[in-house]
Amino acid sequence: MAPSSRNEIHFGPFEVTEQVFHRTANCYALVNIKPILPGHVLVIPFRPVQRLTDLNTSEVTSIFTTVQKVQKMLAKVHFKSISQEEGSIEDGSFNIAIQDGKESGQTVPHMHCHIIPRTRVEEGEKGEGDGIYDRLQGEEGNVGGGLWDLWERPEQKGKFPVIEDEDRIPRSKEDMNREAEFYREQMALLD
Amino acid sequence: MAPSSRNEIHFGPFEVTEQVFHRTANCYALVNIKPILPGHVLVIPFRPVQRLTDLNTSEVTSIFTTVQKVQKMLAKVHFKSISQEEGSIEDGSFNIAIQDGKESGQTVPHMHCHIIPRTRVEEGEKGEGDGIYDRLQGEEGNVGGGLWDLWERPEQKGKFPVIEDEDRIPRSKEDMNREAEFYREQMALLD
Repeated sequence: MAPSSRNEIHFGPFEVTEQVFHRTANCYALVNIKPILPGHVLVIPFRPVQRLTDLNTSEVTSIFTTVQKVQKMLAKVHFKSISQEEGSIEDGSFNIAIQDGKESGQTVPHMHCHIIPRTRVEEGEKGEGDGIYDRLQGEEGNVGGGLWDLWERPEQKGKFPVIEDEDRIPRSKEDMNREAEFYREQMALLD
Repeated sequence: MAPSSRNEIHFGPFEVTEQVFHRTANCYALVNIKPILPGHVLVIPFRPVQRLTDLNTSEVTSIFTTVQKVQKMLAKVHFKSISQEEGSIEDGSFNIAIQDGKESGQTVPHMHCHIIPRTRVEEGEKGEGDGIYDRLQGEEGNVGGGLWDLWERPEQKGKFPVIEDEDRIPRSKEDMNREAEFYREQMALLD
C-alpha cells in the first residue's frame, strides 16, 4: 500500500520513501540509485538543508550515530567471508564522505553522507583501491547523490546514443526496493 | 615553553601538540603536514581509537560539531574574495572525508576526519575539481593522515633518489606552527 503523503520521505526533490531502510527522529538511511560499490548507501537529515553547517547539534548526533549503526549492519552483510556466518567491522573498511557544497561535487542540494564499504583486495587481484574516489568524483559528483537526478528522466529515444555506458545505468526501483527491504530486516537484527 | 608531558597531544604515534589549533573535551583540530589544498586540516578524537564505530555518542557529537566550527573559521579565512572583509560558508564548499580502516586508505590507525576547503573555479581556469580525490587517495592514503609517517623520517642520503617529487615534500614544523597559531586566533574570533 502506498504510504500516505504525510509519511513520504524526500531527498531533495525526489520521493524516496520505499528506498529508505532506516529512520530516526532526525534522519534516514537510503539505498543508492547508482552504488559505486555494493553496499554504498546514504544517510540524510529529514530537514532538507544543503550544508553540514546548517545542522543543529541533535541532527549532527543523529546522523553520525546512524552512520555508525549502518556501518555495523553493512559489515555483517558485506564483510563476511566463506568461513563466517556474518562479518564484523574489523573484516573491512569504509569511506565516509560528504560533498558539502557544489564546488565539492554536491549535485542534490540536500545534505547527505556517503557510506561506502571497502573490502580486502586479494593478492594479485585488481581491487577498487585507487579507483574509488575517481568514481565518486569523476562524473562531477553525479555518483550517489547526483545520480538521483536520473530518477524521473524519460528513456532516451531517437538517433543520439545514450551517453551513459553499461556501468552507469541506474538501478530500477524494484532493485532498490528489494535491497531496502533486506537492509531493513538486517537493521532490525542489530543488537 | 614546551608543554608539560601531561598536556601533550598525540595523533597515533606522533606528538603534535604545537600543531593543534583547537581543543574540546573530546577532540582536537590539527593542521596538516601535507595539505592537498590550502586549509586542509584534521579533526581527531583524543582517545586513540582506529574506527568511527569505536567512538561513543559524546565523542561523535564533539567531533562533528567541531568539524562545523572549523568549517566556519576556514570559510572566513579561505573563502573571502577581493571585495570581502571575510568569507562565509556560502562562498565555497568542503570535502569532508574519513578513511575508516586500512582498506579505505587509512594509514595512521587513529580515527581522523579530513576537512578540505574547495573554492570556485574561475571561468577558463584549471581548478582542483577532478584531482582532489586522486590526490587524497593516490598515495595509498598517504595524504593528510599518512604523511605524518614522514614526521621523523631522516633525510635520504646516498645514490637512490628521493621518491617524493617537489610537490610532496612535507612542511616544516615551523610552517605548521605558524598556521596553527593563525587558526587558533581565528577560532577565538568566531561567534
